[in-house]
Amino acid sequence: MGRWEPDSRGRLQEAALALYSERGFDQTTAAEIAARAGVTERTFFRHFTDKREVVFGGSELLQERILSGVAGAPMGHTPLEAVALGLDAAAALLGEARRDLVAQRQAVIAANPELRERELAKLADYAAAVAATLRQRGVGGLQATLAAEAGMSVLRVAIERWANSDDDQSLPAVMKASMAELRAVTAGS
Amino acid sequence: MGRWEPDSRGRLQEAALALYSERGFDQTTAAEIAARAGVTERTFFRHFTDKREVVFGGSELLQERILSGVAGAPMGHTPLEAVALGLDAAAALLGEARRDLVAQRQAVIAANPELRERELAKLADYAAAVAATLRQRGVGGLQATLAAEAGMSVLRVAIERWANSDDDQSLPAVMKASMAELRAVTAGS
Repeated sequence: MGRWEPDSRGRLQEAALALYSERGFDQTTAAEIAARAGVTERTFFRHFTDKREVVFGGSELLQERILSGVAGAPMGHTPLEAVALGLDAAAALLGEARRDLVAQRQAVIAANPELRERELAKLADYAAAVAATLRQRGVGGLQATLAAEAGMSVLRVAIERWANSDDDQSLPAVMKASMAELRAVTAGS
Repeated sequence: MGRWEPDSRGRLQEAALALYSERGFDQTTAAEIAARAGVTERTFFRHFTDKREVVFGGSELLQERILSGVAGAPMGHTPLEAVALGLDAAAALLGEARRDLVAQRQAVIAANPELRERELAKLADYAAAVAATLRQRGVGGLQATLAAEAGMSVLRVAIERWANSDDDQSLPAVMKASMAELRAVTAGS
């Protein structure tokens, strides 16, 4: 318990997701997560403000990466091409995560209405921020919103597809394929 | 108070939205809504299970109309064309509502995080149901999800645009224009 641990945060996340899966999110306490991870409760609270943050921590960084990708797109890019660069940046970041943990996180969220509503709110926040970034590039309000929301659907779908597949496609590859699917689905009369 | 009222439900909705706007959703009670509408609290609870249902009542009917529209599309229609028929059905229903009340409802939702999360959950539920209906028509899972989610973005955007505009375009017309915008935004390389 007292020894120096190089990755308490990672072990806490893993322990938390395991317990949320086994018992349900509402039935799990921070103390139990700490015990499972072999650290003190104080260590838990040094890494996370509460047990919900274990699920949603990192979302500011993700949003930042997406927005940098969109903002950095060449000015000749269409709104959706700019959004695609934001998604590539997201995929590069999230693709570093362990795929089984991402899948477990999604199952935990799907099983708990409160977590699901919060996840949807996060995605809506990303979409609003992406739309604002597009408007700063001179894109009209309606176009910006539609491109941003379609992009966030692609993000969600690609992560889910990648996390639950058993082939070894990378998340960046799945993200590109999913964006191509969106184009195919919305093409035509 | 005791006299027969042909439209207590409508007056309760109007009173509730006015109070939610003025005081905030959390600060308003069912008793206050009833008093403002000139009916008894008992009448309120004959029409609504709680004050949240004033905001979200009618969503089952809306979902039913959307799904009928999608399911009734000719088999030669693309997934997005089928979704567009669902949106037309939604527009026909919602376009009957008073535009100022729809705008007020949206402002109330935007001002309250809990209501906003619930609204997003409803839209996600519609999207999941539309995707399931598309899959029953033989559409692949990924395509079905992307078409359904893009469609629900169009629905949300079109309602917002219609409710807050001061020209006299009908909701069905705004819905069609918004769907065309989605196609334009996602077209091209």
